[in-house]
Order: sequence, then C-alpha cells, then structure tokens
Amino acid sequence: MSTDIDKLIQELNPDNKKSISRLISLVETSDIENENILNKLSKKTGNAYRVGITGPPGVGKSTLTLQLTKSFINDGLKVGIVAVDPTSPFSGGALLGDRIRMNELTNSENVFIRSMATRGSMGGLSKKTIDAADILDAAGFDIIIFETVGVGQSEIQITEAADTKIVVLVPESGDSIQALKAGLMEIGDIFVLNKCDRPGSENAVLALKNMLQLRHMTIESWIPKIFKTIAAENIGIDEIKNEIFAHKEFLISHNQFLQMRKEKLLKRIKEITIDKINRILWKSELINELDEIFSQSLDNQISPYEISNKIISKIKFSGD
Amino acid sequence: MSTDIDKLIQELNPDNKKSISRLISLVETSDIENENILNKLSKKTGNAYRVGITGPPGVGKSTLTLQLTKSFINDGLKVGIVAVDPTSPFSGGALLGDRIRMNELTNSENVFIRSMATRGSMGGLSKKTIDAADILDAAGFDIIIFETVGVGQSEIQITEAADTKIVVLVPESGDSIQALKAGLMEIGDIFVLNKCDRPGSENAVLALKNMLQLRHMTIESWIPKIFKTIAAENIGIDEIKNEIFAHKEFLISHNQFLQMRKEKLLKRIKEITIDKINRILWKSELINELDEIFSQSLDNQISPYEISNKIISKIKFSGD
Repeated sequence: MSTDIDKLIQELNPDNKKSISRLISLVETSDIENENILNKLSKKTGNAYRVGITGPPGVGKSTLTLQLTKSFINDGLKVGIVAVDPTSPFSGGALLGDRIRMNELTNSENVFIRSMATRGSMGGLSKKTIDAADILDAAGFDIIIFETVGVGQSEIQITEAADTKIVVLVPESGDSIQALKAGLMEIGDIFVLNKCDRPGSENAVLALKNMLQLRHMTIESWIPKIFKTIAAENIGIDEIKNEIFAHKEFLISHNQFLQMRKEKLLKRIKEITIDKINRILWKSELINELDEIFSQSLDNQISPYEISNKIISKIKFSGD
Repeated sequence: MSTDIDKLIQELNPDNKKSISRLISLVETSDIENENILNKLSKKTGNAYRVGITGPPGVGKSTLTLQLTKSFINDGLKVGIVAVDPTSPFSGGALLGDRIRMNELTNSENVFIRSMATRGSMGGLSKKTIDAADILDAAGFDIIIFETVGVGQSEIQITEAADTKIVVLVPESGDSIQALKAGLMEIGDIFVLNKCDRPGSENAVLALKNMLQLRHMTIESWIPKIFKTIAAENIGIDEIKNEIFAHKEFLISHNQFLQMRKEKLLKRIKEITIDKINRILWKSELINELDEIFSQSLDNQISPYEISNKIISKIKFSGD
C-alpha cells in the first residue's frame, strides 16, 4: 500500500488526473492513509493560492467558479477546484443534485474538479477538504478554489481555510439578511452580487454596504468591496479575478500573509488533534466500560460532568 | 462562592426567578461554576419534558412558542423557555433584534423565559443551553422549550437535545428546500406550516409530504405529521400541543424514551469531554512551546499531522 502511495505521489502533476483522483479518494476514505499521504506531500505544499467561494443556495456559485476558472486559465494558470456538496448531516444521503455540471472544463488539462462527499462528521468534512487541497497544491496547481454552500459552520470552516474568501449573493430581499445570520458577512474579503440584471440590484448593493459597516475593522484591515456580476454571461468576472490578486498583494505587502497562514495552520492542527483524540476516546470498549456509569447518570445519580471527569481521568496530560 | 451556589440551589423553584436567573448566568459565564452547579443539580433533573422548536428566520417560531406556552399553562403546567438568538460566530456581537417580545408571558408565575447569548464557541453554545435547561428542569418546570433558528449545526445540535423536535416552516417556495438543505427535514417529529392563511399552503403541505418520503424510516419509527397553524391568531395550537403529548406517549410505549435519552446523554458527555480536553490542550503554554514547530510546518518541513502527533504524544491514554 505504502509503495503504491509513494508511486502516486511521485507521479503527481497537474496532468496526471488519475493519480490525483486516487490520492484524494484515499484521503477521503481512510484516516490512516490520509495521514501517511499528507506527511509525504507536506514538503511540496504551500505554493498554491487558495480561494473560497461561498453563499446561499442558488446564487450561482458554480457558474462563477466556472467563469473565474476560465479567466485564470486564460492567464496561463492551472486551477484545482474542490466543490463541497451539501448533504444532510443526518441522513448521510446525497439528496441534492442542483449543482451546475461543469463538463465544459473537466476535459481541460489545466483544470481538476473534485466534488467532496459530505457523509459523516461535520468536522471531518473540512479536514478532508483541506487535505484534498493540499494534494492539488502538491500536484502543482496555481490556484485552488473551494466552492461551498454557506449554510453551516462546517462550510464556513472550509471557506475560512482559503486565503481569499468570496461571498456570493443575489439582489433579493432577505438574501443578505440570511447571509448575515449565517455569519457570511464577516468572512468575505470580496462580495459578489451575482445575477445583478435582476431588479433591485442597486438597493442590494446599498444594503450590503450598510451591513459591511457593522464589521469590526482596524486600520490594518483589508476593506472588502462589492462587485456586480452576471456570471452566466461572463460579465464582471475579470474584475473579481483582479480583486483576488489585489487582495493577495495586500496581504503580502502588509505582512499579513504568513501570519494568516500560521493562524490557519494552528486551526487545522487543532482540528486534526481533536479528531484523533475523538477516535481514540470513543472506541467501543470505552463506551461499553462506561455503560454502567451511563445508567447511573440516567437515574440522575451522577451528572454528565462527573462522567466526563471519569473519562478524562483515564487520560494523562504530561506537563500537568 | 460555593455556599452562595448551595443557597441558590436550595431556593430553586419555578417562582424564584431571581435564583434561576442567577444560576443560568453563572453557567453561562463560568466554566468552573457550571460544572459545580450541574453536579449539584443532577439528582433533581430528568423530570421535565423537552420540546425543541426550530425553523428558518421569520416563520413565526417565537409566536408559536408563545401560544404553545399559553396552552400548556392552561393545562396547569409550568413552562421554561430557552431562546437561542443567532448572532454571528465571528463578530461576537448581537446584531439581530427581531425576536418577538414575549412581555405578555414574562410576568406569569408559571413561565420563565431566558435568551442565551451565542458569543464564543459554537460547541459551547449547545452545551450551555442544555445546562440551562437542566437548571429549569431541577427548578421544577414541567415543559422546557428550546427555541432556535435552524441555520447552523449548533442550532440543530440544540434542537436534537429535545425529546420532541418541531420544525416550523411557512408556505413559501424555497422555504422547505432551505429546510431540507439545513438538515431540518430529518430531525422533525412534528412539522408545522405556520402563516397558512398565505397562498400556496396546500401546495406546501404536498411538497413537505414528498420530502418527508425521503426520510429514512423503520417499522418502529414515529411518523411525523404536518400541521397547519396561524400562530398569530392562535389557530391550530392545541393540535400541536396534543401531538407533542402523542409523541411522548409513543416514545414511552415503544420503549424508545429511555434509549433516546441515553443516546442524548452520550452525545452530551462527548461534547463536555471534548470541550474540557480542548481547554486543557490549547493553553497558551503549549501553544508557545509549539511555536517553533509551527514555523517548521509553515516552511513545509513537517506536516500538520506530524505536529498533531507530537501534541498527542504528550497525552497518555491509560489502557493503551
């Protein structure tokens, strides 16, 4: 297995879609292999620029991703896309299929598109999405785009892993309110009002501007702008692309780029660590061992906090 | 401090709103006191029946909660309400104030209403909401209602802590789709189509029915029904109340009640445990200690997985 992985990593380059696919599948399905793969890839990562595209359902994120990708390709850049399909965290089923097919691009040599399943734990989703991005990074893609539906904490976590975060909305009443409630207003570096041939787009720009005023800003903060696009007609796309590069330039020239990446790294390490601890802690043996204690707690003899202490007492933190 | 808490717990009863308020505030603000309080309360909990009310913004959840509460009171029951205001996880600010004021009920002896701030970690929110419910439970309220906006994982987590979960929607196109995407369709035990004097309510019922078909069901499963209400005019409210009791009866007669509570307890213990481990692990000393390693990782010399292993190697799980 390990030689197989070594070979796949050796062969890794933007043109070798089979090798990329295989590595991402391994990362998606195996908690052991993904660690092995990521350790081996680590030295090759860090070069790609990561862009997150998020927003409510139906605003045209996929179309925008498609057009932006074309624009990047025209500049001679290679683009990896990781699309996170929203499926219910409860059923594990993939009920939704309204994603725009990106057939147009899948045959291009300079593009790799991967849709991630969202089965299983929410935490695991963002971990595996970032792992997949690392594989694309190591393969040599210049730009990595995460496309997620901005409906949950997990999706926001994925978007936050990007260097530049784009929030897409449409000029409809309630849409920006929804974005505000979902916490999208505070993560966007660039705001895109798509489908702005629809009525009310000027009002929507104003409403967005007002909401952005509420954001916590310092003198060192990047000031997010609002862009109007009609992605389906390729209108306003190059402006978004230029703004992504302007944001990157800003981060670098203001010495924020490395600091930001360091913060993201720390977040990621925390997530990986807690995920591992969870796997160690909640093995069925422990659960069985605790079964009797659970019964006591159901009878309200001991509180859940006391049970938790019993569990933690089984762990030793060196340095304590 | 501890004597103070003992006194507050001793005085705990539905009429002593000051004591309830004080205990919930302590639980909300102090991670040390909340454990102390919950340990002391534990024996008194488990008697209240817990109802979760969730749905997209603007569907009338607060009005429904208000009317249901009145109906419970008319039956001679005492009702505790925990309302979770959605504020952004990023700003820490409480930007939204569109909750319907429940002044009408706040002066009643048989009702206690508490709005929880959502500052800080998402995980912490559901933990503290459930802790607050335990305080109301120990105080002697018969029914505890959680009212949350169904937009995020954390809100769903809170709703899942309830014995009966009510999903509220309005007859508007896209609304039920939104609920589906947010995972609400799969957690509801009762579906309420509120404001059903609006056009399209029959179509909405049909659309909901179709979506419910997609749900995973077994022969032992409770079959959720769809109810039409106009909460603002108190139409259809008693039917909801009766359905809540029918659901409770079903759970008990099918031997599902204790099993369900046990599963919820396990979830809660996991959340408490991980929260504690997080607090122990990410103390600033450890972060500082790891600072050099982080720098190496930023230079891609070591992968985040390797750093995570270094962290975990500092922990000893007995039994390994």
